[in-house]
Amino acid sequence: MAARVTRRIPIKYRFNEKIDRLGICIVLNFNFYAPTRIVFGKETQHEAGALLKPIAGKVLLHYGGGSVKKSGLYEQIAASLKKSGVAFAELGGVKPNPRLALVKEGIALCRHENVDLILAVGGGSVIDSAKAIAMGVFHDGDVWDIYEQRLPVKKALPVATVLTIPAAGSEMSGASVVTNEEKQMKLGYAADPLRPVLSVVNPELFSTLPKNQIANGVADMMSHIFERYFTNTTAVELTDELCEATLRVIMKNALIVVNDPSNYQAWCEIGFGGTIAHNDLLGVGRAQDWACHGMEHELSAIYDVPHGAGLAVLTPNWMEYVYNENPPMFAQFAVNVMGTRGSYREMDSVIREGIARLREFFRKMGLPATLSELGIGDSKLELMAKKATKVEYGIEERPLGGLRKLKWQDVLEIYKMAE
Amino acid sequence: MAARVTRRIPIKYRFNEKIDRLGICIVLNFNFYAPTRIVFGKETQHEAGALLKPIAGKVLLHYGGGSVKKSGLYEQIAASLKKSGVAFAELGGVKPNPRLALVKEGIALCRHENVDLILAVGGGSVIDSAKAIAMGVFHDGDVWDIYEQRLPVKKALPVATVLTIPAAGSEMSGASVVTNEEKQMKLGYAADPLRPVLSVVNPELFSTLPKNQIANGVADMMSHIFERYFTNTTAVELTDELCEATLRVIMKNALIVVNDPSNYQAWCEIGFGGTIAHNDLLGVGRAQDWACHGMEHELSAIYDVPHGAGLAVLTPNWMEYVYNENPPMFAQFAVNVMGTRGSYREMDSVIREGIARLREFFRKMGLPATLSELGIGDSKLELMAKKATKVEYGIEERPLGGLRKLKWQDVLEIYKMAE
Repeated sequence: MAARVTRRIPIKYRFNEKIDRLGICIVLNFNFYAPTRIVFGKETQHEAGALLKPIAGKVLLHYGGGSVKKSGLYEQIAASLKKSGVAFAELGGVKPNPRLALVKEGIALCRHENVDLILAVGGGSVIDSAKAIAMGVFHDGDVWDIYEQRLPVKKALPVATVLTIPAAGSEMSGASVVTNEEKQMKLGYAADPLRPVLSVVNPELFSTLPKNQIANGVADMMSHIFERYFTNTTAVELTDELCEATLRVIMKNALIVVNDPSNYQAWCEIGFGGTIAHNDLLGVGRAQDWACHGMEHELSAIYDVPHGAGLAVLTPNWMEYVYNENPPMFAQFAVNVMGTRGSYREMDSVIREGIARLREFFRKMGLPATLSELGIGDSKLELMAKKATKVEYGIEERPLGGLRKLKWQDVLEIYKMAE
Repeated sequence: MAARVTRRIPIKYRFNEKIDRLGICIVLNFNFYAPTRIVFGKETQHEAGALLKPIAGKVLLHYGGGSVKKSGLYEQIAASLKKSGVAFAELGGVKPNPRLALVKEGIALCRHENVDLILAVGGGSVIDSAKAIAMGVFHDGDVWDIYEQRLPVKKALPVATVLTIPAAGSEMSGASVVTNEEKQMKLGYAADPLRPVLSVVNPELFSTLPKNQIANGVADMMSHIFERYFTNTTAVELTDELCEATLRVIMKNALIVVNDPSNYQAWCEIGFGGTIAHNDLLGVGRAQDWACHGMEHELSAIYDVPHGAGLAVLTPNWMEYVYNENPPMFAQFAVNVMGTRGSYREMDSVIREGIARLREFFRKMGLPATLSELGIGDSKLELMAKKATKVEYGIEERPLGGLRKLKWQDVLEIYKMAE
């Protein structure tokens, strides 16, 4: 297939639609705000109480299953809060792909206990659940409406985090993704008041993660960069380079920790890499994509698969489906991120080699390559494609993606490529 | 000269002194907090009033000389404030290397006018002056004592900025540098409350800068990265890569704008590059250096030379003087930033070529290479070396730098190399 150089691409973008007079989309105006204080390094979890004391009298300690109790982290945090005189209520039980039902329980609890900050101790699911509670406390009516109707949120309880899994980047983002188990819907929402005020990141805590969680987390943070990186916006050289640098460092160190989870230094690279992957530093001024996230959320909503694993399956197939929209962008990825070598005259094979190397990387991480490995058959592919683009709900179709707009038939095609 | 590979360097660092049991300095614990909202892009200066209205009833409009009046920016900002109903007092007259006398005038004015935010419209000097006023308002006694005695600052008026020169990075940093003209001293100070709450960055405004100001600004932002990049801390691969990426992009685009100041896209790269160069994102977890800034401040304090020009003169000489402390670090710089090619077996020549390329870059930018080009003779070199290391003040010597500790004799040697 001959590579087509597309320099002027007068398409509409999902975010920040703005195109100059010549139809070239150059660096976009932006508003960057990432006020989270990151306290990073060894033993930092013991500082939680002292850090929170000046900003909270009573907190909700929010966490997942038994791992924080088994590891002793729960006791360490509780002791730190007590030592600093910070009172706390608690709510455990957050599951991966966090559920709306628990969020509602948390909202009631915060109101009843007059909590003034939510401390999420866990990974992205716990933090996203905390954010849902934080905005739900000040919302009259069903908090799910905020996600489904994209209601504006001006006020939320402050959220702080102690991160146990580097993956979702929720520790410095304004985003929250929650699953409505009754409706089998998984939806994201983002707003400035959801940016945590404080996140404590001790990479020592990551050393006990099982391999599949490590791999899922790495796939998720890589996807957060991909969703920003693959763009038709031109003249975004600095963020291009920052994206590429962060991807290279994450991938190199991911292969280290998946084989040696005790490697503190490698975890430091991944820990901070995962944080900046999603605080939007790498996405400023760029039209962003987010098609893979949109497609994956349907897998998780119905089949409850790990988000990162779903992304690892879909992303290379998405790349193959869309790369002809902007071959130079994908060739740059192949060369600068995946280390592919080749001349400009063979751009198509450079791109295909880059995608092949990405598949190989995911394989080395132990990630699945097909939907069938995730236990997903073909019975609901069309349903998921129609849900992802909203046509299933009888409303106007909302195509996914920015680099290329994907209608439900396109999404179905990509699902089929991934079978 | 044979290159010496120094892998274990049990020296003391200026910042964050922390070395592991084996004497290897690995990634340090850190606390990163950069809450400034950056509103970036075309026409954004007109949003100043609307952005400030929710957080300020009355502001001090602080600026420099005639250029903001000539360019029409002053009128645009004043109109924007009036339109949004934000009252303002004003204080112009900030000079490069901002003076303590005007700061004191500003403090008195803010108190008298009950100002609740300072809006700095200008470059680093105006912003640094605004920060000095902001903390001076709540300080009993002489604000200079904060700089000289490094007093803790817990409270300051909020500062917002409209940036007119990309250079100092003060628009997102907690740092302020002020000159005490009576004492011929130029001192820096940094604290969290000095981080601006809002910075408006419209790269269109940079198109009217004269070439020497463009070049000085670029040298300054590059130095902010160098001071963080050159370190003995190991296992800081992500920030290494981020530093290198930012340096490459700034340098490439600097050569564009110095010849074509109307290039908006190139200014966007430099504008955001200069901001992240000094918000400490690139320095997290690293022992930092800051010797060149310390040496340069003495030049500016006595001879009132432009900060960036002084840095351009000193930096290559500093590199030559110290590189044997850590040859692999400087070889990495030569290869990854300056594009030098060469094998590991000829590391010394790779390093020297990298430094030569940096000199050549500064020359292309029209920057000076020697102290004599700055009008600085040899009469006060020893005095400046002794002031820089504090021995002139009859107190215990405070060596400069982190990668290598420089005593006054070392500083004098570097000044002489730069003559």
